Amino acid sequence: MRLYVTSASPWVRRVVVSILELGIRDRFDFVQTKWPHTWATRTVPYSPDFLGATSVARIPALVTADFALVDSHSICDYVNGQLGDFRLLARDGAARWRSLSDISIASGIIEAQVSRRAELLRSEKERSDDFIEKMRDRQLRCFGALERRVSELGAAFDLAQITIAVACGYEDWRYGAAWRGVAPGLAAWFDGVSQRPSMRATEPAETPQS
Amino acid sequence: MRLYVTSASPWVRRVVVSILELGIRDRFDFVQTKWPHTWATRTVPYSPDFLGATSVARIPALVTADFALVDSHSICDYVNGQLGDFRLLARDGAARWRSLSDISIASGIIEAQVSRRAELLRSEKERSDDFIEKMRDRQLRCFGALERRVSELGAAFDLAQITIAVACGYEDWRYGAAWRGVAPGLAAWFDGVSQRPSMRATEPAETPQS
Repeated sequence: MRLYVTSASPWVRRVVVSILELGIRDRFDFVQTKWPHTWATRTVPYSPDFLGATSVARIPALVTADFALVDSHSICDYVNGQLGDFRLLARDGAARWRSLSDISIASGIIEAQVSRRAELLRSEKERSDDFIEKMRDRQLRCFGALERRVSELGAAFDLAQITIAVACGYEDWRYGAAWRGVAPGLAAWFDGVSQRPSMRATEPAETPQS
Repeated sequence: MRLYVTSASPWVRRVVVSILELGIRDRFDFVQTKWPHTWATRTVPYSPDFLGATSVARIPALVTADFALVDSHSICDYVNGQLGDFRLLARDGAARWRSLSDISIASGIIEAQVSRRAELLRSEKERSDDFIEKMRDRQLRCFGALERRVSELGAAFDLAQITIAVACGYEDWRYGAAWRGVAPGLAAWFDGVSQRPSMRATEPAETPQS
């Protein structure tokens, strides 16, 4: 299977940490992609190979012999269910829905983080300070919500915890420590799990522009 | 259960069509929400009730006695799995992954549709014509990809077909008929399924601003 990745994307990191935690890295060929900063507002020149893999033209994208999955939600569902024997997320029942609740909040943070990044890459003329503030508000509000869930996070580093940890890691990297004031318990938890080999092997780094 | 909705959102429509197709409308209290057009770039004044339900502060949001789900992906997963006996999406196996493949493309269209709408609501000064073009490119490229799947769509109006149909319906409503030229077979399929009671009951309409 081919997995299209970049080193900066939190959506990619979420998939890769899941793969590393399941110990199935050898099932995948990782294909590195490059993104000029103009991705924020323009269709960049894609390789035919990449466009053939994903009509959405975003990363992550997973290509198997039978089908392609072109977002993190579907890829994680497949990796967990087909390759991971549901070890990262229960197949159904209350445990699944409760995890999805945390995942949906953490995914809301990641979407806001990526949208804010794209806004910051715009030309000054087209940049909206209001929008940046809106995303910042959402990020901190959601970290505050996750702070109230810390005591319920279990021992297993599952898909909910992975998604939360990736959101924390990206926030530290791009936007500094403000979230730590809002969510000190979560920050302490993150400082622990960020030492896991899967997290250390996937620390964010700028994606090559060319 | 409370489900926060609006009449314009394709993400909401996807959830509501799923509920109607499963015949479980009576399990939900629908809470209508209002959105001033400033939502595109600003944190709008939310009711405490709504913010208590969803820290992400977007629709759809589902609140049960035990947890909240704050995006369409998790809500559809729950509605299908817990309330729908997996009738809209297989629990696992090849049928699930193939449906997720279609869903991930259609979701990519819907994300682009909503992002383009937000861009069009910006002040002229902060509007990026490049970004609007990028979203348009993505929408039409993905409709082209779905055109190649039409012959494989089965008889069941399942979550993959619902998501595709909602993307088609929103495109017609907001952005006109260009997609029909790119995907004539898909358009013919859509014209059929759009006559289903679940689709007719949820045709998009402008969300009240106040």
